[in-house]
Amino acid sequence: MFRGYQSIRKNACLLYALESHQPKLVSQNGFGKRSPTLLLVKHESSAVDKLFPSHHVFADRHIGPSRDDTRAMLDFVGVESMSELVSKTVPDNIRLNRDLHMEEAKGEYELLERLYEMASKNKTYRSYIGIGYYNTYTPNTILRNIFENPGWTTQYTPYQAELSQGRLNCLLNYQTMVSDMTGLPVANASLLDEATAAAEAMGMCYRHNKRRKFFIDQRCHPQNIAVVETRASGLGIDVECGNWRDVDLSNHDISGVLVQYPDTEGNIEDFTKLVNDTHANGTLAVCATDLLALTILKPPSEFDFDIAVGSSQRYGVPLGYGGPHAGFFSTKDKFARLMPGRVIGVTRDSSGREAYRLALQTREQHIRRDKATSNICTAQALLANMAAMFAIYHGPNGLKHIGSRVHNATVMLAEGIKTAGHTVHTQTFFDTLKITPNIKQSEIQSKAEDKMINLRYYIDGDVGISLDETVERHDLKDLLEIFNSPVTMENIAESLGARPSNSIENSPFKRTDTYLNHAVFHRYQSETDIVRYMKQLENKDLSLVHSMIPLGSCTMKLNSTTEMMPVSWKEFSSLHPYIPVNQAEGYHEMFLELEKDLCEITGYDKISFQPNSGAQGEYTGLRAIMAYLHAIEETQRKVCLIPTSAHGTNPASAQMAGMKIQPINVDRNGAVDMKHLTTNIEKFSDTLACLMITYPSTNGVFDKTIRDICDMVHHHGGQVYLDGANMNAQVGICRPGDYGSDVSHLNLHKTFCIPHGGGGPGMGPIGVKGHLAPYLPSHPVIPPYGTDKPEAKAFGVVSAAPYGSSAILPISWAYIKLMGAQGLREASEIAILNANYMSRRLDGYYKTLYRNDEGFVAHEFIMDCRDFKKTAHVEVTDIAKRLQDYGFHAPTTSWPVVGTMMVEPTESENKEELDRFCDALIAIRLEIKDIEDGKMDPKINPLKMAPHCQQDVIEGSWDRPYDRKTAVYPASFVTPSTKFWPTVGRIDDIYGDQNLVCSCPPMSVYESPFIDDNCTVAQKMN
Amino acid sequence: MFRGYQSIRKNACLLYALESHQPKLVSQNGFGKRSPTLLLVKHESSAVDKLFPSHHVFADRHIGPSRDDTRAMLDFVGVESMSELVSKTVPDNIRLNRDLHMEEAKGEYELLERLYEMASKNKTYRSYIGIGYYNTYTPNTILRNIFENPGWTTQYTPYQAELSQGRLNCLLNYQTMVSDMTGLPVANASLLDEATAAAEAMGMCYRHNKRRKFFIDQRCHPQNIAVVETRASGLGIDVECGNWRDVDLSNHDISGVLVQYPDTEGNIEDFTKLVNDTHANGTLAVCATDLLALTILKPPSEFDFDIAVGSSQRYGVPLGYGGPHAGFFSTKDKFARLMPGRVIGVTRDSSGREAYRLALQTREQHIRRDKATSNICTAQALLANMAAMFAIYHGPNGLKHIGSRVHNATVMLAEGIKTAGHTVHTQTFFDTLKITPNIKQSEIQSKAEDKMINLRYYIDGDVGISLDETVERHDLKDLLEIFNSPVTMENIAESLGARPSNSIENSPFKRTDTYLNHAVFHRYQSETDIVRYMKQLENKDLSLVHSMIPLGSCTMKLNSTTEMMPVSWKEFSSLHPYIPVNQAEGYHEMFLELEKDLCEITGYDKISFQPNSGAQGEYTGLRAIMAYLHAIEETQRKVCLIPTSAHGTNPASAQMAGMKIQPINVDRNGAVDMKHLTTNIEKFSDTLACLMITYPSTNGVFDKTIRDICDMVHHHGGQVYLDGANMNAQVGICRPGDYGSDVSHLNLHKTFCIPHGGGGPGMGPIGVKGHLAPYLPSHPVIPPYGTDKPEAKAFGVVSAAPYGSSAILPISWAYIKLMGAQGLREASEIAILNANYMSRRLDGYYKTLYRNDEGFVAHEFIMDCRDFKKTAHVEVTDIAKRLQDYGFHAPTTSWPVVGTMMVEPTESENKEELDRFCDALIAIRLEIKDIEDGKMDPKINPLKMAPHCQQDVIEGSWDRPYDRKTAVYPASFVTPSTKFWPTVGRIDDIYGDQNLVCSCPPMSVYESPFIDDNCTVAQKMN
Repeated sequence: MFRGYQSIRKNACLLYALESHQPKLVSQNGFGKRSPTLLLVKHESSAVDKLFPSHHVFADRHIGPSRDDTRAMLDFVGVESMSELVSKTVPDNIRLNRDLHMEEAKGEYELLERLYEMASKNKTYRSYIGIGYYNTYTPNTILRNIFENPGWTTQYTPYQAELSQGRLNCLLNYQTMVSDMTGLPVANASLLDEATAAAEAMGMCYRHNKRRKFFIDQRCHPQNIAVVETRASGLGIDVECGNWRDVDLSNHDISGVLVQYPDTEGNIEDFTKLVNDTHANGTLAVCATDLLALTILKPPSEFDFDIAVGSSQRYGVPLGYGGPHAGFFSTKDKFARLMPGRVIGVTRDSSGREAYRLALQTREQHIRRDKATSNICTAQALLANMAAMFAIYHGPNGLKHIGSRVHNATVMLAEGIKTAGHTVHTQTFFDTLKITPNIKQSEIQSKAEDKMINLRYYIDGDVGISLDETVERHDLKDLLEIFNSPVTMENIAESLGARPSNSIENSPFKRTDTYLNHAVFHRYQSETDIVRYMKQLENKDLSLVHSMIPLGSCTMKLNSTTEMMPVSWKEFSSLHPYIPVNQAEGYHEMFLELEKDLCEITGYDKISFQPNSGAQGEYTGLRAIMAYLHAIEETQRKVCLIPTSAHGTNPASAQMAGMKIQPINVDRNGAVDMKHLTTNIEKFSDTLACLMITYPSTNGVFDKTIRDICDMVHHHGGQVYLDGANMNAQVGICRPGDYGSDVSHLNLHKTFCIPHGGGGPGMGPIGVKGHLAPYLPSHPVIPPYGTDKPEAKAFGVVSAAPYGSSAILPISWAYIKLMGAQGLREASEIAILNANYMSRRLDGYYKTLYRNDEGFVAHEFIMDCRDFKKTAHVEVTDIAKRLQDYGFHAPTTSWPVVGTMMVEPTESENKEELDRFCDALIAIRLEIKDIEDGKMDPKINPLKMAPHCQQDVIEGSWDRPYDRKTAVYPASFVTPSTKFWPTVGRIDDIYGDQNLVCSCPPMSVYESPFIDDNCTVAQKMN
Repeated sequence: MFRGYQSIRKNACLLYALESHQPKLVSQNGFGKRSPTLLLVKHESSAVDKLFPSHHVFADRHIGPSRDDTRAMLDFVGVESMSELVSKTVPDNIRLNRDLHMEEAKGEYELLERLYEMASKNKTYRSYIGIGYYNTYTPNTILRNIFENPGWTTQYTPYQAELSQGRLNCLLNYQTMVSDMTGLPVANASLLDEATAAAEAMGMCYRHNKRRKFFIDQRCHPQNIAVVETRASGLGIDVECGNWRDVDLSNHDISGVLVQYPDTEGNIEDFTKLVNDTHANGTLAVCATDLLALTILKPPSEFDFDIAVGSSQRYGVPLGYGGPHAGFFSTKDKFARLMPGRVIGVTRDSSGREAYRLALQTREQHIRRDKATSNICTAQALLANMAAMFAIYHGPNGLKHIGSRVHNATVMLAEGIKTAGHTVHTQTFFDTLKITPNIKQSEIQSKAEDKMINLRYYIDGDVGISLDETVERHDLKDLLEIFNSPVTMENIAESLGARPSNSIENSPFKRTDTYLNHAVFHRYQSETDIVRYMKQLENKDLSLVHSMIPLGSCTMKLNSTTEMMPVSWKEFSSLHPYIPVNQAEGYHEMFLELEKDLCEITGYDKISFQPNSGAQGEYTGLRAIMAYLHAIEETQRKVCLIPTSAHGTNPASAQMAGMKIQPINVDRNGAVDMKHLTTNIEKFSDTLACLMITYPSTNGVFDKTIRDICDMVHHHGGQVYLDGANMNAQVGICRPGDYGSDVSHLNLHKTFCIPHGGGGPGMGPIGVKGHLAPYLPSHPVIPPYGTDKPEAKAFGVVSAAPYGSSAILPISWAYIKLMGAQGLREASEIAILNANYMSRRLDGYYKTLYRNDEGFVAHEFIMDCRDFKKTAHVEVTDIAKRLQDYGFHAPTTSWPVVGTMMVEPTESENKEELDRFCDALIAIRLEIKDIEDGKMDPKINPLKMAPHCQQDVIEGSWDRPYDRKTAVYPASFVTPSTKFWPTVGRIDDIYGDQNLVCSCPPMSVYESPFIDDNCTVAQKMN
């Protein structure tokens, strides 16, 4: 029904005229504010179409500005039409100039029906496979009030602490929970999954003692071993995998030892001696562990482990065919500053009130050039919050009850299986058994499948079973039947007595200390109480349900309900990632469709869905490049050129991939300094591995030279990695694969509508050209399709699950199908228009730092605020904080240029909202002017005192040179009806660091001159 | 697993001691805060139970106080145990003294599985049955953010306007929408359904001109005819049902004429002459109409209709097998004060700011004794809000698009059916056709069923089809196939051209005016915008997600997510109420189970689920009594005795049932004045129809005499109607059916966990003893089970749908199954304990007006505030408003005793919350004391100025004799983190009426002395 639309869209002026000539037809067939014009142009539509058009046009719901708004904004920026705007913004030589080949846009209801059909092809067997993934009950009240609530899902990462106290508090609860359960005093606010947490632990051991060997026990979960090995190989660290009892520490060359507790086969072993030995030899001891087991099992701290990692999935987070789940990480106090990932800390605000904030110190530390073994940006905030709330909802007694129950069930099951004559190998266990059956494995498997049950089938013919919270009596009965057990549950229970001899309770591994003693774990166990607690936290936090969050490079756009709903469907949420592929046909069909669409959108040939964050995607892409170069025997190619305007994760990822970084300058206009680039490409012609570049650039401009740059890199034997963070400006307009890029990651949580979740989940699949496809990541248990082919030469494994966070992929699938080719392109166009409109509206108040030759920005732009420091002692942070008083979340500040703000409005915001935001910025500029003009005190003024919280205007006296109303209702659109109150005053910088806004460090950190030598990166690091 | 629990529960002290002796067992098996003790007493549990207990105890989630809290509260009120408390509160001679016979309590996940199995027995055919019910797409964002959001569903009726501005605003949008669409300037904020709205219209016609005849066209929907006839018969009004063309108005004895537009068969007719004739003869003209048709159809106002009624279901509210949906009602300005139901009005607050409130004036007017033809209390606020939001989301163009699309589809379908040689009777139509097929009806039906399609099958062999918003091309194709149509949609469309000759557009019925011109219908059509609008409104309103709402007689308890989830399942939500019963087996299974449980809980023999509100239940019960008396030839029995402490709907319902009311006094202790009762029972011995009594009484006491009273009434030939509003104090403790009541309604939205929805939906099924069962309501289309038996003698029909608001019955079903017998009883016990605890804590500050001889109250109590008027000029309203500053919704005020507050905490609130509420009340008492002591100004003080909104403390200067902090943070627990801000100051009473709190008028209105005569009530009214 969109046919013919493109031509009109190019001449919006004509279109507008048409509208006014045919008001009748418009109003008669109007559906919503945008569509009438679409109908007008259906030249080729059938007779039925005319009488009976499709009536759901999702693009109209997704895109904010109305047709009238669009026209007004085009006029304002001084172009005749959208096509003129695009032609003045995007270089001709990269334009696609055709519609994407996609299915026709689907209506929302039609789409859900189709997706449900697909989802129904997934088989919801009971899975007792274990290996780090377990069934769990998500408390329904948490499901509905957090997981399905846009008030929680559409929050951004809590950089603006004053209006993020709710989730900061909740994440602090999470850290407290992890710390309590593992017994280690410091925990971070989540990592991507257990396997990457293990890899981060390895990196931390290396940071600690600089030894280049790492030992991993062979009975760790296979995905943990695989990811650790992959990560180590990039860093030049050797991993030895064997039996922990055989580790030789005497050479003092092993940085750390990682064991699984309980191990992947279910065994619980005494690591006391091992840990003592590691410490005696300067080695760190790392324990991958299980939060549910720890409810009744001696915590890692009691063995004196230095680090504990694991997954908090089984604390109420659905399996989701592998994710998203929160990985956890805790350590000893003395290692706090070495710890990777985001950490929430308690601090104080400007008036000394307690407040929470992201404590960035440790991050700053670990991303320093010579220590970059971590590129973490996005975490798993939403899932960590769910896990924290699960612990709060159950409290320590409830958790212990669940743990005991699961364990007792396993004790009973073991007894029943033994009685049937099978051999149970696991002596001391929590919830997992390894069994050598006295019949064929295939017979067990066949009986299990008849009951729609999945077990773990070892290659050696053994069978594994892991029980979980959801197991009921009838499940145990079924399992006993599968093993031909002659006894009933009642027989078993009677024979075992109240305290079975082989239960943990009767073992030295029994947990004896108390945990979760903090009041928060005891106060909210009625549903009424926990609902109020969740709502209270939610209401402290600004999210997309309140106002725009124009985060440059972070694309905070609509996450529509229709896209979100399928994530809760049990057909998607309840699948274990290691079930046979034929039980996940719905997922695989969806993966394939999404891959096809993403390839069409990007111009790539193949997608890997494994990377579960953007930075992970960067890393994966660079490793693929390195693997390719290795395969074509260009092993000397290790230099990675990165413009200084690049996203800070870029160099970190490159370092981790074993590359050497050479920064490339940016010229006065924000474009790559071609001379500097040329010089360096030529200089490193023999060693050039790749160029890593963001496009449109992080300076908010479509550089004209991109195609030339790509050609030049290729000419010199290098590859091009194009960071996909800014895909939201390109979809339907130009394709990286067309103009020379070899690989990109796609932040599905930016361009493709996965909500940010308050700091995760993200998804960072990568697209590659065909020559890189063989090198895409594999998986030790379930090889992603393609990676099991003979020609595949995967470099390794990057995430715990084969397809990363599979459960959120339906969101992006749905977005693409709902929008269709034209809707997607229109979204990009409006995103560009919105940015240009705002940039123009701010002219005269704030300088837009970079525009292209035609005077246009891309989908985002940098507002220069540096002068105000001189003219009024105003820092960009003051403006950011003052924006909170106006009800807004600040744009990205001081990145990529210190002292500036980067604004990205996205297509989902309408003109009214853009105008409000501009009005706020303009009003702030006038407040600055008052300071410049000496009309306002340079120290005590609305900017310096911002944000203003309730206490400021209510408690105590008021002695400021501006009034209360100015403080908290600074614009006519800020009223009691709309007021969003920051819950604390400005976070005290003494307790934190200056760079509050950008998680990813500016390129300047990496700008030490590159020394060309032949030693490996790892050697250099030593 | 609860066995043995009762005995321990009776001696809580022993139990407590046990706990401290066996801490190990407690902590080891603890699940949540309450359950350990339950485990301790599982004397008879199996060995498996011991090792592997059930781990989901929902009662612990539902009930607020912890075990420790419970003990502390028992101590505080001075009893040893819960059983002592109950024995001192509830008279011995009515105690049940056994466990209810129910299924064992289910865990939440187990329960949902079981319910889903049941739901799956419902068949989700496509239904084109029409008759007032149509498929519709609930926009997913509205579904999730309103329908499934406790922030919207758990709001109370907006009596406290200052913290209800969000939903008041939304309901005003609803009224505006109804008014615009029907063209009539005044609309109310919803009625229970279309049929009762029609009955209310009839009542209004009667109120207007006092004529005792009413004419209804035979082509109104059958349920409209049935409900109007039933309601008329109670009021002594004669209804003539025939062809509107034949109505004889010349006798000037017809109060009103009701026609359906379009009619039930689909015809659109010109009522111009009819309406002119009615007006010429002093008769009112009423039009039942269809909001979707009116998007393209001339509105009723253009025929000069006086009243329009209908259902707003098809504006995005799921079918739900009959409800809940919002009925609408609009009329001319001059009839505004006659209009039934709740009306929202624009008014101003104490500072002159615009504000919304319930405009009670019209209600006050229409419930006056000699005009009581309406007993409306609960409306359908939640559903009205959804319909309003649907209109906002689509806007006028979107709605018109949907309307045109449905209409055009029908035009095409008619053409296709005609082409196949069938006769289409409907000449001018919107979406509905009546067809005489050229083959047997059974053949059509068989083909339709093969395609899982339901049509309307007329008795005369004709077939009806009603299309709707959800119809897609493949649906039309299927319908054409059923009718053997030889042509394709494309053929038809081509033959019809762009403007088919028989479309409304080419008829005199075409709508020519514009509608929904208000900005609100044009601003929120992107999803981002509407989500923010919904959130903004939500956040203005206090609901159970914020704090307790201790509404005496309104039981605001936990509405748990698990109970709520099934309501959204398509197996429940998508069913048309008139499908064949064998397609709704899941519903019927659930009805039967719920009936069984409710009978066991109440001691009754049979339940009717038809009444869709409490007041409707009262009416139904009283009509059943009247029918029974009629059947046993005691037609002279019409006197209804009602204690003056009764809920105000009681006398209104009795009047409507054709009874004569005799008020009975209440003595000094709040109990029924036995002498006065005896006198009146004896006086009316021959004419006594029934006693209508609330128990425990609305004064908050279990009167000891209830059994004697019931016996006495029976002795004198009367029946006992026991108002079930206070069932929350009785479940599991005593049963109305045991101690003498013959019939009760059960407010499922009070005791049985259906949320209040901000003023509806409610559900008021009635339970009856066996002798009344034959008289329970029937239905003209789908007779509820039992009513189709030969012995059934239904008095009529009370709601549009056979089982009332079927879709919300799973909530109550789930609550009962989750709680089990002991859980239910414990809930009642804790409800009683909580009330007694609060009453005692307030001793010395506020007098509890009524206690029983032992000094205990029931589950609620009346706080006397009358003295403060004398001592400090403080009214009870001042206290209510001041509570808002403390973050609380006021209790019921001035009912049943003027100048008092009635507090009902419910079992879901924990001690901490009760203490906060008491602390607030005590702090307010001290504020009053300051006035009494002359320390605070008697006019300008925190009470008189309450509630304080943001502007009060932020804008302008502060010259009050108390400080800002006292104004808005009056207690330590009111902090910026927890502060709930009323969005406006106190509503100006000049614009409203004094009685802001209770919807149902006090008995005093009815206390005109009863004159015993033999004329009918209706005659007397004249």
